[in-house]
Amino acid sequence: MDSGWLPSLQTPSPEAGFELAVKLGRMGVKAAQPSAELREALRRNYEQDSEQLIAVSHVVAVHFQTIAAANNYWR
Amino acid sequence: MDSGWLPSLQTPSPEAGFELAVKLGRMGVKAAQPSAELREALRRNYEQDSEQLIAVSHVVAVHFQTIAAANNYWR
Amino acid sequence: MDSGWLPSLQTPSPEAGFELAVKLGRMGVKAAQPSAELREALRRNYEQDSEQLIAVSHVVAVHFQTIAAANNYWR
Amino acid sequence: MDSGWLPSLQTPSPEAGFELAVKLGRMGVKAAQPSAELREALRRNYEQDSEQLIAVSHVVAVHFQTIAAANNYWR
Amino acid sequence: MDSGWLPSLQTPSPEAGFELAVKLGRMGVKAAQPSAELREALRRNYEQDSEQLIAVSHVVAVHFQTIAAANNYWR
Amino acid sequence: MDSGWLPSLQTPSPEAGFELAVKLGRMGVKAAQPSAELREALRRNYEQDSEQLIAVSHVVAVHFQTIAAANNYWR
Repeated sequence: MDSGWLPSLQTPSPEAGFELAVKLGRMGVKAAQPSAELREALRRNYEQDSEQLIAVSHVVAVHFQTIAAANNYWR
Repeated sequence: MDSGWLPSLQTPSPEAGFELAVKLGRMGVKAAQPSAELREALRRNYEQDSEQLIAVSHVVAVHFQTIAAANNYWR
Repeated sequence: MDSGWLPSLQTPSPEAGFELAVKLGRMGVKAAQPSAELREALRRNYEQDSEQLIAVSHVVAVHFQTIAAANNYWR
Repeated sequence: MDSGWLPSLQTPSPEAGFELAVKLGRMGVKAAQPSAELREALRRNYEQDSEQLIAVSHVVAVHFQTIAAANNYWR
Repeated sequence: MDSGWLPSLQTPSPEAGFELAVKLGRMGVKAAQPSAELREALRRNYEQDSEQLIAVSHVVAVHFQTIAAANNYWR
Repeated sequence: MDSGWLPSLQTPSPEAGFELAVKLGRMGVKAAQPSAELREALRRNYEQDSEQLIAVSHVVAVHFQTIAAANNYWR
């Protein structure tokens, strides 16, 4: 895994937190499939599959929950 | 991702919080499939599939949990 | 979405909280499929499918977790 | 739904809490499929399907999380 | 369910907590399928199926979250 | 299970916490399928399946939530 890709869970805004959640979801896939070429090929598959897109959105939701708590919900 | 689409997790009511949860679920899909045209096509698919509708509802539930905590459950 | 359907997460009892969790799960489906007629048709499908019934129960469990916390577990 | 089936989330022990979690999972299914006869028929199906048994166990895990928190982890 | 199988959520170490999470996942399956013989037969099925093994790992993750909180994360 | 593989949930950084989450997800699979040879064979299967990779990422997300809380979000 690349060093320095996740310096902190703190983000300046909820929106930046959501983007970080998307990134964490992708890093979870990368941990299991390190080949960028293969991930790109698989992406062309799931991008057209609503079931998998919903599953991706679910993973983002779990990470966003973590990040929101880490930022005290940006209150 | 559009700038300014998520200014805050605070909402005036539980109902507004639920609507925000629905929106976050959709933004999670959008992050993986940016084409509005393709998302519209996929929507026509999953709208008729109870399994996928339940999966969508699950994602909403996770986001609503986050938003409810962010609002101290509107107590 | 109907206005006023979710005035509060506070309920008088755990049982009422569970019923609200069931309702929230249904509202998550409704947000993705607004047609009551189509939802009724889909319901006839998933009511006979144990896999989907378990998935529905899972969504209820997530919402119940939120509602239980909102009510300080009715302690 | 039967009145009085969930008087409290407090249980005397972790084991009783786990049994309550199993019950809540079943009540989530019952909310979507009220017919006891049909649920019994479906049970004969999923009892033989490891995938569905794992899904049932997942729902129990979510409810047990809620109940454990409600009991301050029986500390 | 066997009496006395879950005396406490407190464990001496994170590792013991993880083992307890695995046990809770299995007890969730046992609650739905009490026959040890049938569970053994199903195990031979899912042991060879990566999808189900990932699902099992997911259930363990939820229980481990509960147990870790119960132990104040062994801090 | 190997003794001493999980001495602590505390990690020096979010990145190390994420790596630990990946490891916990794998240990959950290992608990259900102890054979390293068979797990290697199954890995060649799910590495090419976007649906399973997303499921793996989901498990990582749940464990990361636990670890992040254990580290007080590295604040």
